[in-house]
Amino acid sequence: MQTKFLLGENQIPTHWYNVIPDLPEPLSPVIHPATGKPASPDDLVRIFPPQLIEQEVSTQRWIQIPEPVREIYRLWRPAPLFRAHRLEKALGTPAHIYYKYEGVSPAGSHKPNTAVPQAYYNKLAGTKRLATETGAGQWGSSIALAAQMFGLACTVYMVKVSYGQKPYRRSMMQLWGAEVIPSPSDRTAAGRGILAADPESPGSLGVAISEAVEDAVTHEDTRYALGSVLNHVCLHQTVIGLEAKEQLKLAGEYPDVVIGCHGGGSNFAGIGFPFLADKAAGKDVRILAIEPSSCPTLTKGAYTFDYGDTAKMAPIMRMYTLGHDFMPPGIHAGGLRYHGASPLVSQLVHAGLVEARAVGQLACFEAAVQFARAEGIIPAPESSHAIRGAVEEALRAKEEGRERVILFNLSGHGHVDMTSYDQFLSGKLDDFEYPEEKVRASLAHLPKVEL
Amino acid sequence: MQTKFLLGENQIPTHWYNVIPDLPEPLSPVIHPATGKPASPDDLVRIFPPQLIEQEVSTQRWIQIPEPVREIYRLWRPAPLFRAHRLEKALGTPAHIYYKYEGVSPAGSHKPNTAVPQAYYNKLAGTKRLATETGAGQWGSSIALAAQMFGLACTVYMVKVSYGQKPYRRSMMQLWGAEVIPSPSDRTAAGRGILAADPESPGSLGVAISEAVEDAVTHEDTRYALGSVLNHVCLHQTVIGLEAKEQLKLAGEYPDVVIGCHGGGSNFAGIGFPFLADKAAGKDVRILAIEPSSCPTLTKGAYTFDYGDTAKMAPIMRMYTLGHDFMPPGIHAGGLRYHGASPLVSQLVHAGLVEARAVGQLACFEAAVQFARAEGIIPAPESSHAIRGAVEEALRAKEEGRERVILFNLSGHGHVDMTSYDQFLSGKLDDFEYPEEKVRASLAHLPKVEL
Repeated sequence: MQTKFLLGENQIPTHWYNVIPDLPEPLSPVIHPATGKPASPDDLVRIFPPQLIEQEVSTQRWIQIPEPVREIYRLWRPAPLFRAHRLEKALGTPAHIYYKYEGVSPAGSHKPNTAVPQAYYNKLAGTKRLATETGAGQWGSSIALAAQMFGLACTVYMVKVSYGQKPYRRSMMQLWGAEVIPSPSDRTAAGRGILAADPESPGSLGVAISEAVEDAVTHEDTRYALGSVLNHVCLHQTVIGLEAKEQLKLAGEYPDVVIGCHGGGSNFAGIGFPFLADKAAGKDVRILAIEPSSCPTLTKGAYTFDYGDTAKMAPIMRMYTLGHDFMPPGIHAGGLRYHGASPLVSQLVHAGLVEARAVGQLACFEAAVQFARAEGIIPAPESSHAIRGAVEEALRAKEEGRERVILFNLSGHGHVDMTSYDQFLSGKLDDFEYPEEKVRASLAHLPKVEL
Repeated sequence: MQTKFLLGENQIPTHWYNVIPDLPEPLSPVIHPATGKPASPDDLVRIFPPQLIEQEVSTQRWIQIPEPVREIYRLWRPAPLFRAHRLEKALGTPAHIYYKYEGVSPAGSHKPNTAVPQAYYNKLAGTKRLATETGAGQWGSSIALAAQMFGLACTVYMVKVSYGQKPYRRSMMQLWGAEVIPSPSDRTAAGRGILAADPESPGSLGVAISEAVEDAVTHEDTRYALGSVLNHVCLHQTVIGLEAKEQLKLAGEYPDVVIGCHGGGSNFAGIGFPFLADKAAGKDVRILAIEPSSCPTLTKGAYTFDYGDTAKMAPIMRMYTLGHDFMPPGIHAGGLRYHGASPLVSQLVHAGLVEARAVGQLACFEAAVQFARAEGIIPAPESSHAIRGAVEEALRAKEEGRERVILFNLSGHGHVDMTSYDQFLSGKLDDFEYPEEKVRASLAHLPKVEL
């Protein structure tokens, strides 16, 4: 019984797949947060390097991966694809369950897939320093690693409460040479404003984004980097699904359903979009996004224009949103606590090409423990949402007596998330209700947009 | 430039390599700690399953790996071999540096290579529960994983001070279904004795071993498992070096020097012994063990008979030792703080077939940071000793202008060891002097042995 499907180093994809030409309708424009009118590429040039701005709007289906990026991808790519024989047996399902494992990267998640090209294009554009924000630290550690590889300095504004509570990821960033600043900080006007009002502020992702963007636009040599949501980020992550397709060919299978967890959308896009290309070409494949029921952007949000951040500094985009001032409950899958969603994923959900389902925190941890005991690998809490989705599909296949082929993305390992497992195993974790009232209140504050 | 050398799943070794027939002289007998006379296999039968006792003394050069063990090895084996192009460049060395990476196992280290066969042979022998001890938790988490895979219960006596300070590995063990008991505990007479004398005792590895062995011998359905030192443990780890040899063939190279860090000896044996087989057959290859200068067993210890544990419950073996009551300083490479050494490695060092070198803690962390910034992967503090050894060899090659081929074993990742990096990066780590007086005092208490 083959368990692992490996590709050779020379089978790392040569091109990323860009879903834009396969969308059912053109993307809505990005709106400038200050004017409420469509933003031009020029508006972004102080924030992102030109190649990333080009990729953001490109209508080319295939975009070449630069050789220096593939060189670094080689440290962990191609990532393995596993057949979950032991999980299938534990579930007693006739389904064939495959998982793509992105936890083999040095940072332990899929995030370096985009951090590396972002650092590369910045290097090309003469950027000397990257500024970014991070919550739990998955993105911050990945961009720190990538910046180090290309000799760029890196400043990470880390939400203050996480800075204290997640020292492991902070140390990783520092080990990879980044400067990590607890946010709010006195480095920026945004941070100083918050501190003046509340010197004990625990910070938030919204504030940290504001600080990082301000740092970038106020320093000539510095640009900003974002780890999810945007089109170019989704693009870079498609190496996941492109490899998985080749690996499933080795297994002689094609998936009936492709599953990813969904927060900002980048790992979901990574596993899903290359199969969406087949779907656009007429293939019968379901593509399923799993989100937390406490932050159910795709399943309960509005499909409309909203700010990308709480502080209204980031561009306004058309997407599923729970409202930019919605603050999700403190679930342990920190990477899935985002009020919005990738505009690309949002449009595909809206068009019915991608399905979305919300699952509870306890159900996810239960699936994660079952997975870890069967397959060995300890999943990140974010990835456990995809596992839960796969388990539900596998149990349905069992009920129906069908030999369904299921593929999901195991986006990262949970070695630095063990306190969450600790709380789950000792019965201290709760589920959160969908905070309907808060969402309704938040959706009352949508921006005015002039197209 | 090829970076990664991968083998297919069907290239996992079919046999372990047993170094015993290639030793320069027969191994000295194992001595019963109570009698001071050679122990018989029967003395061990309540502690270990018969197949492991057989392997402990086998003179067969190749021992078949059971198919159910290979099935589980497939979850992470063959482990990748990397060429450290970026580290070479950072060092400006003409040397070719290769590293075998064992951090890809679900537990993040090489320990599952022996945990899995140990659990398997116990399952075959009808054992229902495994008892073991752990310090920092690398071994405990690996045996918890393996026991879970074969449906065995598992009780881990974890040194109490680590139980409090290393909650991540404790949680891993619990996630994989093990019961984790802070030691000293009231479960055993040994533990109760310590607690009666000092209710606040922080515990020690010696006490935890005593508790685990007592638990095994006082319960019919329970056996004991050990993660290093013993011959069968070294045997199981040879999959590391056997794979590395095949991978170096893909690279068209053969090493001038093979390097592993050395604590109890198992990961060192794993990378080194398969090359020692070539050396025994006349090949010119150096095999180099790197140990901490604060616990310099191979470089400063006596080659003599000593107890395997502080509490004098474990068998007496002929090995390099600093004395069984030597307590090494609290360095961050917890897995290398052992007063003794594998009898196999000891004999090979004594015969001059294996070289040993001691290095300081700060030099190791410095090498680890350089490695992480060049190659991305964050090494476990134990593995950083091998990196330091490789860096020294590479710099010597540079001085000599020689294109030396260096292979080392990167035995695990450091994602749950970030507090150590934190202390290093903030300048809070110290080197420890070699505690000569303490070793002299400890070596005055060697056991009396009648051969």
